[in-house]
Amino acid sequence: MASRLKYELQVDLGDGYPVRIGQGLIGDRQQIQPYLAGNQVLIVSNERVAPLYLAPVHSALEGLHTDTLILPDGEEHKNLGTLSKVFDTLAAGGHRRTTTMLALGGGVIGDMVGFAAACYQRGVAFIQLPTTLLAQVDSSVGGKTAVNHRTGKNLIGAFHQPALVLADTDVLATLPDREYGAGLAELVKHAIIRDADLFGWLEERADALRQREPEVLAEALYRSVSIKIEIVAADEREAGQRALLNLGHTFAHALEVSTGYGTWLHGEAVAIGILLAAELSVREKRIKADLVERIRRMFEALGLPTQLPAGTLSADTLRTAMATDKKARDAGLQLILLDALGEATQTLDFQERNLMLTLEMAVGGG
Amino acid sequence: MASRLKYELQVDLGDGYPVRIGQGLIGDRQQIQPYLAGNQVLIVSNERVAPLYLAPVHSALEGLHTDTLILPDGEEHKNLGTLSKVFDTLAAGGHRRTTTMLALGGGVIGDMVGFAAACYQRGVAFIQLPTTLLAQVDSSVGGKTAVNHRTGKNLIGAFHQPALVLADTDVLATLPDREYGAGLAELVKHAIIRDADLFGWLEERADALRQREPEVLAEALYRSVSIKIEIVAADEREAGQRALLNLGHTFAHALEVSTGYGTWLHGEAVAIGILLAAELSVREKRIKADLVERIRRMFEALGLPTQLPAGTLSADTLRTAMATDKKARDAGLQLILLDALGEATQTLDFQERNLMLTLEMAVGGG
Repeated sequence: MASRLKYELQVDLGDGYPVRIGQGLIGDRQQIQPYLAGNQVLIVSNERVAPLYLAPVHSALEGLHTDTLILPDGEEHKNLGTLSKVFDTLAAGGHRRTTTMLALGGGVIGDMVGFAAACYQRGVAFIQLPTTLLAQVDSSVGGKTAVNHRTGKNLIGAFHQPALVLADTDVLATLPDREYGAGLAELVKHAIIRDADLFGWLEERADALRQREPEVLAEALYRSVSIKIEIVAADEREAGQRALLNLGHTFAHALEVSTGYGTWLHGEAVAIGILLAAELSVREKRIKADLVERIRRMFEALGLPTQLPAGTLSADTLRTAMATDKKARDAGLQLILLDALGEATQTLDFQERNLMLTLEMAVGGG
Repeated sequence: MASRLKYELQVDLGDGYPVRIGQGLIGDRQQIQPYLAGNQVLIVSNERVAPLYLAPVHSALEGLHTDTLILPDGEEHKNLGTLSKVFDTLAAGGHRRTTTMLALGGGVIGDMVGFAAACYQRGVAFIQLPTTLLAQVDSSVGGKTAVNHRTGKNLIGAFHQPALVLADTDVLATLPDREYGAGLAELVKHAIIRDADLFGWLEERADALRQREPEVLAEALYRSVSIKIEIVAADEREAGQRALLNLGHTFAHALEVSTGYGTWLHGEAVAIGILLAAELSVREKRIKADLVERIRRMFEALGLPTQLPAGTLSADTLRTAMATDKKARDAGLQLILLDALGEATQTLDFQERNLMLTLEMAVGGG
């Protein structure tokens, strides 16, 4: 199958690995085979993605000992029970330490396969073949792997870097609009925390991005992933600046908990969360109000939600949910606030009153 | 509680950590508290050990937020299901990334708690408080953590180094004779692969060791653990010389599988396995027969089994079981053979006929 590689980035974590962006990559044996640790492969995918993209990946692995495991789709399956099935499949197929696991799917598949690879025989190689924009721009890069536990999202996990990430933009063609949009929210987030120029560039191309124009999308991915790589390479284990990637996430987490998971896609909740963080930054006199409006217009242009339905939630409910975020329990609530477009800070230093005012405005009580 | 620290070793893996050997250490707050990551602690122990040694550990943690989880005793509980209970307890107690897990028990507890610590919130601190000789001399040091899976022992795990290992020789007083002896087998193994002088020293003190004389035991532990530390520090992930620590283990594994787990303690099977490896080394003209006899006399003096009950197993059964060891599947059967007392080699280079002759002699068919 013909492929077109457009961009290549290098991540200096683990043994070091490339992130490649282009069209048709997942079906190209030249792209995949040099990164296999041996001649055994386990492809893990889900019921939604496999009918669409398993065939090209299989064809790229011709001649190798390839097993396949198709899991049910959905966050509710990202747990130790499903992980155990992955280990069963590896063991039944006689997979050795030199096997390579391929994660073909979105963030759920990538997180779970990465963690399985971290643990199987105390660590085997894995390759990320992300099939959602969210996974391509964010979760496939940086080596955070995990499953959920009854009591918490991503509670059980490891830092385990992939051997290769192939962001094949062709596969985004079949993504539902809302999922695509949710990925754009995280893509834009990287510009907001680190790169004002990129934000301007994205503003000018919002329509093209929303229309999924391949050239614009590939360049946007390249520039946005570059920021993520720069941040995680400097702070693999989230001791410092990696936390900036959580801009909007404490608010988003509270929204997801308060409305029930499934109401919003994660990226949609993040878009609203980023706006709330920006509004609080205005009240804290860190930025001017026009920056909030600029971000809001950007999200609107990308088809993302920018406000909560009035009257459905209370500010107190949201505030309580923010405090139960595990990141918030340790020594008070830390938030990521903006100091300018392209500049974010993690801080405990804000007025509780300003936070409550922000939440009250958001729920329609202001 | 008064304690007497006799020896201290330093392991240069992870952030670096001490291994301390002495009496009364697990009840001494000065020994434990400086190594806690924060003020939250989860002690994990089992139903056999907790009634004996939980109280002193608790007293050493006075003033801290301490939770306790008592698991059922036995290798059959070393699995993902039990691990899930550990995570439940951590989450229910609100344990954060700065928590510290304490493994109070033998190798099963140490392996499982170490792996739980490797995964909880992508990695928290843990301390090894080994209560068996086997765990003190071997499994508590080096950072190999794991649980079993349906299809394989230690199939799911991680390399995760403890913050501290306290080998309290007082707790060995309550160890059943067979378990104590099984630990001595691994203690002697370190001398056989790396230190002929230590082997001679141990020969002279075999009776004192068997009687658990505290001074001799502490020095033997110190010298034997030193060897393990030297080897694992040079090869954390078992790419090379760490494999030498598996002397006798492929044979032992085959014995355990063929006779059913539980017939032999692991260390007992290792003693016989070491003798078989030594006998094969004689047939391969690597060593002289008198070295095998010297090792046999040592094991006999320590009360360890040195041969199989005649006529209960076939050589073919053992040979087949050796090949299914996961270490053996990759590119042929690798064995650790002896070139001299204190010198071992991992090799594929041996005559199959010599291996079969060795096994046939062992099962009583020769």
